[in-house]
Amino acid sequence: MAEAVVTMDGWSVVHDTRTFDWASWKLTSEEVRNTAIKEFKELMKKWEAVEEEKLGSQSLYKVVGNKADFMFIFLRPTMDELEEIKREINKSKLGDYLIPDYSYVSIVEMTMHNPMNEGKDRKLSPQVEARLYPILPKWEHACFYPMARRRWEEANWFAIEKEERTRLLYEHGMTGRKYAGKVKEIITGSIGLDNWEWGVTLFAHDALEFKKIVYEMRFDEVTTKYAEFGDFIVGNYLPAEDVDAYFAL
Amino acid sequence: MAEAVVTMDGWSVVHDTRTFDWASWKLTSEEVRNTAIKEFKELMKKWEAVEEEKLGSQSLYKVVGNKADFMFIFLRPTMDELEEIKREINKSKLGDYLIPDYSYVSIVEMTMHNPMNEGKDRKLSPQVEARLYPILPKWEHACFYPMARRRWEEANWFAIEKEERTRLLYEHGMTGRKYAGKVKEIITGSIGLDNWEWGVTLFAHDALEFKKIVYEMRFDEVTTKYAEFGDFIVGNYLPAEDVDAYFAL
Amino acid sequence: MAEAVVTMDGWSVVHDTRTFDWASWKLTSEEVRNTAIKEFKELMKKWEAVEEEKLGSQSLYKVVGNKADFMFIFLRPTMDELEEIKREINKSKLGDYLIPDYSYVSIVEMTMHNPMNEGKDRKLSPQVEARLYPILPKWEHACFYPMARRRWEEANWFAIEKEERTRLLYEHGMTGRKYAGKVKEIITGSIGLDNWEWGVTLFAHDALEFKKIVYEMRFDEVTTKYAEFGDFIVGNYLPAEDVDAYFAL
Amino acid sequence: MAEAVVTMDGWSVVHDTRTFDWASWKLTSEEVRNTAIKEFKELMKKWEAVEEEKLGSQSLYKVVGNKADFMFIFLRPTMDELEEIKREINKSKLGDYLIPDYSYVSIVEMTMHNPMNEGKDRKLSPQVEARLYPILPKWEHACFYPMARRRWEEANWFAIEKEERTRLLYEHGMTGRKYAGKVKEIITGSIGLDNWEWGVTLFAHDALEFKKIVYEMRFDEVTTKYAEFGDFIVGNYLPAEDVDAYFAL
Amino acid sequence: MAEAVVTMDGWSVVHDTRTFDWASWKLTSEEVRNTAIKEFKELMKKWEAVEEEKLGSQSLYKVVGNKADFMFIFLRPTMDELEEIKREINKSKLGDYLIPDYSYVSIVEMTMHNPMNEGKDRKLSPQVEARLYPILPKWEHACFYPMARRRWEEANWFAIEKEERTRLLYEHGMTGRKYAGKVKEIITGSIGLDNWEWGVTLFAHDALEFKKIVYEMRFDEVTTKYAEFGDFIVGNYLPAEDVDAYFAL
Repeated sequence: MAEAVVTMDGWSVVHDTRTFDWASWKLTSEEVRNTAIKEFKELMKKWEAVEEEKLGSQSLYKVVGNKADFMFIFLRPTMDELEEIKREINKSKLGDYLIPDYSYVSIVEMTMHNPMNEGKDRKLSPQVEARLYPILPKWEHACFYPMARRRWEEANWFAIEKEERTRLLYEHGMTGRKYAGKVKEIITGSIGLDNWEWGVTLFAHDALEFKKIVYEMRFDEVTTKYAEFGDFIVGNYLPAEDVDAYFAL
Repeated sequence: MAEAVVTMDGWSVVHDTRTFDWASWKLTSEEVRNTAIKEFKELMKKWEAVEEEKLGSQSLYKVVGNKADFMFIFLRPTMDELEEIKREINKSKLGDYLIPDYSYVSIVEMTMHNPMNEGKDRKLSPQVEARLYPILPKWEHACFYPMARRRWEEANWFAIEKEERTRLLYEHGMTGRKYAGKVKEIITGSIGLDNWEWGVTLFAHDALEFKKIVYEMRFDEVTTKYAEFGDFIVGNYLPAEDVDAYFAL
Repeated sequence: MAEAVVTMDGWSVVHDTRTFDWASWKLTSEEVRNTAIKEFKELMKKWEAVEEEKLGSQSLYKVVGNKADFMFIFLRPTMDELEEIKREINKSKLGDYLIPDYSYVSIVEMTMHNPMNEGKDRKLSPQVEARLYPILPKWEHACFYPMARRRWEEANWFAIEKEERTRLLYEHGMTGRKYAGKVKEIITGSIGLDNWEWGVTLFAHDALEFKKIVYEMRFDEVTTKYAEFGDFIVGNYLPAEDVDAYFAL
Repeated sequence: MAEAVVTMDGWSVVHDTRTFDWASWKLTSEEVRNTAIKEFKELMKKWEAVEEEKLGSQSLYKVVGNKADFMFIFLRPTMDELEEIKREINKSKLGDYLIPDYSYVSIVEMTMHNPMNEGKDRKLSPQVEARLYPILPKWEHACFYPMARRRWEEANWFAIEKEERTRLLYEHGMTGRKYAGKVKEIITGSIGLDNWEWGVTLFAHDALEFKKIVYEMRFDEVTTKYAEFGDFIVGNYLPAEDVDAYFAL
Repeated sequence: MAEAVVTMDGWSVVHDTRTFDWASWKLTSEEVRNTAIKEFKELMKKWEAVEEEKLGSQSLYKVVGNKADFMFIFLRPTMDELEEIKREINKSKLGDYLIPDYSYVSIVEMTMHNPMNEGKDRKLSPQVEARLYPILPKWEHACFYPMARRRWEEANWFAIEKEERTRLLYEHGMTGRKYAGKVKEIITGSIGLDNWEWGVTLFAHDALEFKKIVYEMRFDEVTTKYAEFGDFIVGNYLPAEDVDAYFAL
């Protein structure tokens, strides 16, 4: 039996995708549409205030392709707040047009695999704080995908020695480092919470970097041998000031 | 041919998830909404009376993410009662807005694998009674997932010796024990009843414990080698006194 | 190349599941509802007359959980009659609320695997007649699931010798025999007709017996090594005299 | 690298399944229904004229079970005509009730595997013409399923020698021959056109023959080792003269 | 660890499929239909102007079978423009009837595998420009499918040596060359962007060529051993001048 990993855990996270019901939206009066947008922007302001107080974070993306129209990412201290936010959206006027689609529930996770961090009292470090309770970068693009590690007879991630897992992840981390400044990454754990084992959220100024980093990492031994991937979704950041234009007919 | 397991079996169980149709709910008059909520709260009271008489148990959860909005868990002595409850919900006014989604049918199950329990006349023990006919803890969070055991050529759970199965499950139980007081677990069997082989329902005061226990257990030999998992769903407990607030517009 | 099996084939069968549209049903006037129920009960009478003449058989089940609300099982001499019955239901008033869901098409099948039956002129035996053209027992519960045999390199059902297949199925039959009086079983073949290779329909007075028999059989060598299972659906028998109560609001 | 197969290719084919919206159909006035049926029968006549001129062929089937209500099979010289026919159906009045479901796109295919045909100038043979541009038999039942050949390490159809492929298919053809007069078969290729590699369309006077032939063929070495199957759909032939009765309320 | 591939990357691409809601379209007045078509044709003109300036490209296809009715292919310098085009379609009047279906997001990709191209300063070559920023050929038919490379223990594309990958792809390219003038191909990479690893878009004057090339390539060692395929979709080119006829009732 291999030694279990020790994790540090931060905020709870939901990736919440929505399809917008444009046909019904067009049937609504301009007055109702304006009221709905106004109410939604007030919701956004309320969320921004939470972020300013470092009690959570969020971003909103315009999804490319037909998988969805929106992807919300919400980070909060508790699962209760995540469910309340969902309900608040659904109760809002705009919520009538934001048809719920695929979602993913997870918790920000750091592991002790990185040997460079060992021996430090990480709980107190501001760097660790920043990684467990991250304020999402408002970069132009985001990419989300869930993944799992294989439990095959000939390649069983959870059965190999901890040292081997550390070595493989260290090498993987080296690939990631090449993209410093180009790609930011948040790893969230979803074992016991959602269908895959981890969620990976990437941010970039240029969406091509998502392709470059994930492609290059596919040649890392840990990916080659142990990784399984779920669906990928890519979105473009929607700042509050562009909300009116987004919904304008 | 390996020796078949002997089980003790308790209440029948349904995990019944629902999506709430907020858009239609908003179109309804306040009067109709109030009547619907009142009727639903009476249903809840009726169910609570069953629980007080120890003739069944249930809990209602607000689901995190878009997999559903509600998860009901009902335990009753017969499958007939489970179907009647479903119909009663569907016939109720609120039922018009509680769109049926994923469900799971199973029966509370105890096996004789645990060697510490052998040799006892378990049928008469109040502990066994409490496990076969459990009153669901009203803890803040619940997690449900179905699972199966592999029947691969090189890892076939149903073909290995009973002693090996007992050893593996004992070790697995030791991991579970570390979470005493933090996580409660109900195992239900669904072979012959639903698509996977077992259902696992976990309860916790802190949803992070779901991640911790399932993650740690993933390193147990029995999981590493023999476990396959279905979809995970996580919810926050909804007590009767919060029902009004939940549906308020 | 292994010797192909010889089968005896009886009635054509459809397992037809339906979800009931309660929300629309409630919007209908009591008069329309009464007319719809009356018409449906006349259909049931017509079907019962067919059963009395031994020209077919059927039963109706209330499904537990959200997979469906109803499961009809129809057995008839031809596929034409099965399609006509479907259309008759869909054309009926109640049919507007019986939304078609999952179905399964097969033909009652007996094979020559059981060595105890060899050498008999089975065609003439009333026992064989009763098995090929079975009148469904009106027991309290039914369970349906489709299955297939593996064609893996190391476990290929269709490539092993006939004697080995006979031995494995004989052993399997011995497990089944323990449940005489508790579980009745109808095996239907669906190769060339539907997505899996066989359908298994079980009947019991106590739904726990479905779990017990399928669980015990999972340890049979033939299941352990060669079986793949589709979705399981469990229902409670709905006799004609309970139809009014079922639909009453 | 194994030698690629050489094919002869005939008409383009679409298997187009539809679910009939009975509830909406009943809400329509008798006049509209009559007009819709009349228009549909004119479409059928137009298609029959094409068949009479040997410029295509088609048949319409009433599907058994809930996978669909109709299966159209259309064969035409070009993909353009197949798309135009779909659009013509959708534009017709009856098209409002013929909800599109599963479909399959392929091209009639003959291969040179059969050694008995080698050395002949097949292009000129009327037999080959009849197989590449087949007029569908108006037999009572049809069965459609798509299939693929395995590319497993230990069983890779596309990597074995041409002689071995020819031997396996010859043996397979011998099983088929036993059903001469009972089952007709049209093989269509869909590599590069739809999700599986081939479509198999069977015709029979007795639907039991679909089960018998596919069951027996499952023991052929080529099936045992190399075949993967998609969904099976079975239908009963609907001649033009029964169209009125089909839709009558 | 194998050496990662180096790619050159061009325009961002979305394959956007839509189902047309004919039943609602027929309920609309002729005036509204004319306005909707006029507005759509203006959109098309705007897109054509972009293509004329070589700032992007696009084509529209009538899909064969029921997978969809339309497939749009859009190529643009950024993901932002792809999302804006989707929104522009959805906001248009015709968008109310163009129900979003399956889509695929990728970026035009060239790799350095082809040894004939090595040592050249490809960035400056007009040929490379033409391949990275391709104007879609307005040929009669298009075929799209996504694919991935296996990461099996015995066949792991991302773990084999670069020379071996180059050899295999060179051989594969030789098969492709036989179809020069008959089939054009655009390879787009989707690792980190969508669910598979690459998208393949083929163009032909005769749809049979899709079957011929993909069939022949299935015998190439690289396909035989390493390829996995997603769904195939085939469409017929819809030029602007046929738009009126397409939608005419």
